[in-house]
Amino acid sequence: MNLRVPGPTPLPRPVLEAVGEQMINHRGPEFEDLIAEITANLKEIFVTKHDVVTLTCSGTGGLEAAVSNTLSPGQRVVVISIGVFGDRVAEMARAYGADVATVSFEPGHAADPDRVRQALAEEAAAEVVFVTHNETSTGVTNDLEVLAGVIKGEFDRMLVVDGISSIGSIPCPVDEWGIDVAISGSQKGWMAPPGLAMVSISPRGWAAIEKARMPRFYLDLFKAQRAFEKGQTPWTPAMSTLYGLRQGLRLILERGIDNVHADHARYGDLTRRLVKDAGLELFADESHASNTVTSVRVPEGVVWKELSAMARETHNVVLAGGQGELSGKLFRVGHLGWVLDGELKQAVDAVVQCLNGQHVSAPNNAGTA
Amino acid sequence: MNLRVPGPTPLPRPVLEAVGEQMINHRGPEFEDLIAEITANLKEIFVTKHDVVTLTCSGTGGLEAAVSNTLSPGQRVVVISIGVFGDRVAEMARAYGADVATVSFEPGHAADPDRVRQALAEEAAAEVVFVTHNETSTGVTNDLEVLAGVIKGEFDRMLVVDGISSIGSIPCPVDEWGIDVAISGSQKGWMAPPGLAMVSISPRGWAAIEKARMPRFYLDLFKAQRAFEKGQTPWTPAMSTLYGLRQGLRLILERGIDNVHADHARYGDLTRRLVKDAGLELFADESHASNTVTSVRVPEGVVWKELSAMARETHNVVLAGGQGELSGKLFRVGHLGWVLDGELKQAVDAVVQCLNGQHVSAPNNAGTA
Repeated sequence: MNLRVPGPTPLPRPVLEAVGEQMINHRGPEFEDLIAEITANLKEIFVTKHDVVTLTCSGTGGLEAAVSNTLSPGQRVVVISIGVFGDRVAEMARAYGADVATVSFEPGHAADPDRVRQALAEEAAAEVVFVTHNETSTGVTNDLEVLAGVIKGEFDRMLVVDGISSIGSIPCPVDEWGIDVAISGSQKGWMAPPGLAMVSISPRGWAAIEKARMPRFYLDLFKAQRAFEKGQTPWTPAMSTLYGLRQGLRLILERGIDNVHADHARYGDLTRRLVKDAGLELFADESHASNTVTSVRVPEGVVWKELSAMARETHNVVLAGGQGELSGKLFRVGHLGWVLDGELKQAVDAVVQCLNGQHVSAPNNAGTA
Repeated sequence: MNLRVPGPTPLPRPVLEAVGEQMINHRGPEFEDLIAEITANLKEIFVTKHDVVTLTCSGTGGLEAAVSNTLSPGQRVVVISIGVFGDRVAEMARAYGADVATVSFEPGHAADPDRVRQALAEEAAAEVVFVTHNETSTGVTNDLEVLAGVIKGEFDRMLVVDGISSIGSIPCPVDEWGIDVAISGSQKGWMAPPGLAMVSISPRGWAAIEKARMPRFYLDLFKAQRAFEKGQTPWTPAMSTLYGLRQGLRLILERGIDNVHADHARYGDLTRRLVKDAGLELFADESHASNTVTSVRVPEGVVWKELSAMARETHNVVLAGGQGELSGKLFRVGHLGWVLDGELKQAVDAVVQCLNGQHVSAPNNAGTA
């Protein structure tokens, strides 16, 4: 199967073998070694000297940890959203009782630093700002260095970054850009199975966490950090997934993080070129197109569910559809983690062959660009 | 390694092979089949006709889901605690702002139904009652059928059961006993890796969830159930762990759930006999001793950390120590999931040989029984 969704990603053989290893005691010395290696390697790739904890939950759980650990009920917070995952942060912050100001941008476009500047000038009470680095739903990468310059440099707000589908694949030097809390997810560029969220916390982040009063227990970052300092986790961790993450991290560092970033830039370039050469239309503003996932408009009159099923059944290619309001309007090609250039070509070729095969019905009410 | 902690448990070869399988799309038809099979088999083993969802989190996350989904801030709730895990439920309910009445029993003892009856008579405002079925920290199994008779039969309260280290190993017919929310964890008797919590919800449970106002998002049971009905999960799930759980469930049902229960009764009997024959003292009241984990007093003058390290280093036997206030006072032998009788004998023999080997220091300030 050519699995081309933006996570879970196909895992290379050494990772699958690691994932299938026998259980160990999560309160014993082998586990201390496991967690120490993972944490040290994550710090290297997050490019942070501060703390990194790994939680047993999906990326959404990691985002929730950032929300519930850094905010208090009623607290004003700015969420910069360029798609489904930014909106999700706003939704969960509201679920916990935060007073959320969402600064939204049109799907397919990155956040405009001027509008962010303007919003922060109007939001003097919002100490904490959430930003998505790479919006998986639209395949757009924000210019985080510039946004961080505004949020931190100009306004000195605390910066929380959803780096779920960026860190490990797209450069995101956490300390250099002044990110106080950064979240990633094991099923993205890390070549590991889903089920772990990795969260870095700066000293300013810890200071906010100390003040924050939203309820949390399972996702309590203090509890996680205290346990990590003893080579443990507060609760029984997802052992097999940790084995996979350890091996994925080894593969990334063997390749070299700069090479891994260059690889992802090449996957992005190649995919966008293949899509355009095939006469298909990119959904995302190309100046901010993501190097981990490419979004493509579903051609007018084509029913995505049928095209998707045909690509899967006749070409063994599995693509991701649009989410929320973008359902039926775009599809997404994941290219993060362990990717072979030929897989990207085969995926786009499969779409073209399905479209040319006259097998995809085009009723009048189909989603259009 | 003879891993004898009460989870994670050693996994049989077919489960490890399943865990190491390649990723699939969590929004595709193969995943629908995976989640449908797991859910159907869980319902069979929980013995429930109602809903069961599987969450990507440890057992503690499952308990938190039960707390945050069924209660509102300020709501009075009764938590019956016979050890660390009962206390943990009380602690997390307080963290979420519940008004908790803990009914505690001496470590090593089961909950006395008369005291529970008396407590509920005094707690007319507490609509919801939490009970641990099997307390992993002390190796005690509550007589849940009798307790459920009091809580549901006599007082008609909503019943939430921590069945993390019981369901799948010790009989716990959820519907027959009137359990409204039951929680288990994949790393216990299920022969799967840690990282999944399985939660059953009765119609009365759903009615309570509808009224409950504690904040939740990642662990929202409505969101989970709505996704499950479409053959999905709300967030990217722990795929490898789900593969393991599917295979573990197949092995349990191949063996037959009654046989699996009988196996665990035999493991419990055998372990207790081995411990007593070795001249060691059981910690738990034997009339309520658990069939998934046996607690043993650390002999007077013996330093548990040294005994534990020696058993690991010289006999390859990994045991669990005591938790919280019981640290240094007891150790625990896990016997749940995939267990060979010879492993239990080897584990107890290793302890005896270490104790007889004169290598374990016995300073004056050591923990005593």
